[in-house]
Order: sequence, then structure tokens, then C-alpha cells
Amino acid sequence: MRRHDREISELQQLEEILKQGRELNLAMLDGDQPYVLPLNYGYADGCLYIHCANQGQKLDCLSVNPQVSFCVSEVVQRVTGGTACEWNTRFRSVVGRGRAEIIDDREGKIAGYDVIMRHFGGQVGGYKEKHLEASLVIRIRIDSMTGKQSLPSR
Amino acid sequence: MRRHDREISELQQLEEILKQGRELNLAMLDGDQPYVLPLNYGYADGCLYIHCANQGQKLDCLSVNPQVSFCVSEVVQRVTGGTACEWNTRFRSVVGRGRAEIIDDREGKIAGYDVIMRHFGGQVGGYKEKHLEASLVIRIRIDSMTGKQSLPSR
Repeated sequence: MRRHDREISELQQLEEILKQGRELNLAMLDGDQPYVLPLNYGYADGCLYIHCANQGQKLDCLSVNPQVSFCVSEVVQRVTGGTACEWNTRFRSVVGRGRAEIIDDREGKIAGYDVIMRHFGGQVGGYKEKHLEASLVIRIRIDSMTGKQSLPSR
Repeated sequence: MRRHDREISELQQLEEILKQGRELNLAMLDGDQPYVLPLNYGYADGCLYIHCANQGQKLDCLSVNPQVSFCVSEVVQRVTGGTACEWNTRFRSVVGRGRAEIIDDREGKIAGYDVIMRHFGGQVGGYKEKHLEASLVIRIRIDSMTGKQSLPSR
């Protein structure tokens, strides 16, 4: 990171951003080209959990190459002004790297859904069998992450 | 795309999402690994414009490999419920591919800033020379894009 004055390196702060976020952008490799998607997620204990159908392009990509980059970003305020120099975006974000594992056993999927439901403040359990069968969980073990922020002065 | 019932393929609708968005996620290659970042942008005539400092990791990556994937996503509504099956996210998003060009001549940078300022509804011109010198514009020519939506019924 070029702007070290904006860096967040404390794990607790990074986790707070991941816990408050609802959508992440997941970048993977599709052949030799980057491919990014917006996805809902849950976070717990150093892992991100994503719920998806049991087929599709991202599963094809991740099966070949599980290395991913992710980003969770929150725009706190957009400052506008007369000239361009007065404009500013107040934000905080986390960008990281990890490895995706595809979880397709029933118990593993339920545990993953539980993380996602808790993340969104919802009730765990009561998942319909047909939905469990037609879906999968992608778990991303975070290998590294850094945060960046530019917040309004207090 | 697996869910063709959710696909947006009309250029006008795709452009509308790009014109209304304020932040995109840009995925590139850092060596052989994906790398994604959240960035403000402007859109005009099939190209995305990003303003950035004249040094940093993304420029290093894009200089080596200009192929990118981008995503602009808007969460319209989050539907909550008692059980997991009742939860839903209403959204619309565009995911695409393009090639990044680094624009470092003064006139090109001014034209790029103009696109970004217009995109945000701001006033063009009046850019300070020291900011022009310390920054660059990344122009992404969009090669392909598709949209996806799940909107509330009217």
C-alpha cells in the first residue's frame, strides 16, 4: 500500500469491517484471465462463507484454481465541492487473499449456512432439503488481508 | 450465466447501471494471482475511467497485464424472514471484461477527469497542476459485459 497513513493493520479492526459488511467482491482466475463477482457472504474465525448453486462458472473456475482475492468496501461519505480538488470519498475497505474450498457434504453446508445466517442477524436452521441438495458452500480461508480507510475527522 | 431469467443483455440497461454506479471493483492479475480493488470511476462511451496516483501496486500489475474484469453492483433491497429460505437479496449488477490503458499525457488526463467529474454530477475543469502531475488516468475499454438482476415485483 502506497498511502501508509491510511493503512489498517490491526486484526480486530479488519475483522470488524468483515463482520459489518454484507457483500464482497470475489476475484478468481477464469483460465488466464481475472474474473470478479459480487456475492453475499458470512465471516467467522478467519474464513469467508459463500452460498451458491451447485453448478456455474465460479465453481468451474475455483475447481481449477482455488486462489482468490476478495474485497469488502464501505463508502462512509462522499464529500462534494465546487472544484474536483474539493471532492473526496470517505471509506474503509479490506482487501485480501485466500484459498477457496468447495464444501458439498450436508453437515458442512449446514455449518456454512449457519455462519451466513448469523452474519446477517438471522435465525439458523430449518434449511429445506431440496435447497441443501441444490446448493453448495464455498469457504475461503483468508491467507492475508490489509485494510485502508479515509474517514471524516471527528 | 446459469440463471438466464435474471440476465440483462440490452446495452442500454447495462449502461444505465454503469452510469448510476459510483464504485467498481477492478480485478487484475498480480503475477499469477487475482487481485481486486474497490475504486471510484466514471463511465462514458464504452470506457471506464479511474483516477489514481502515478505509482502503486495496481499500476505495476496493469503495466504487466492489462486484462481486467470489473463489476458494478447495486443492492436494491434485502428481504429478511423467519427462516433462511425467506431471505433474499434484490440487486442489479454488471460484470465485464476489458483492457486497461494507462493515460499519462496532460490532455488525456484532463479528458479522463472530465468524464469522472461529469459522472459524479460535478463541475469539470480547474484541476490543479500539482495534482495533474502526481496522478494518472486508467481507461478501461470494455470488451464484453453482462448484467444480472433480481428486482422486487412491481
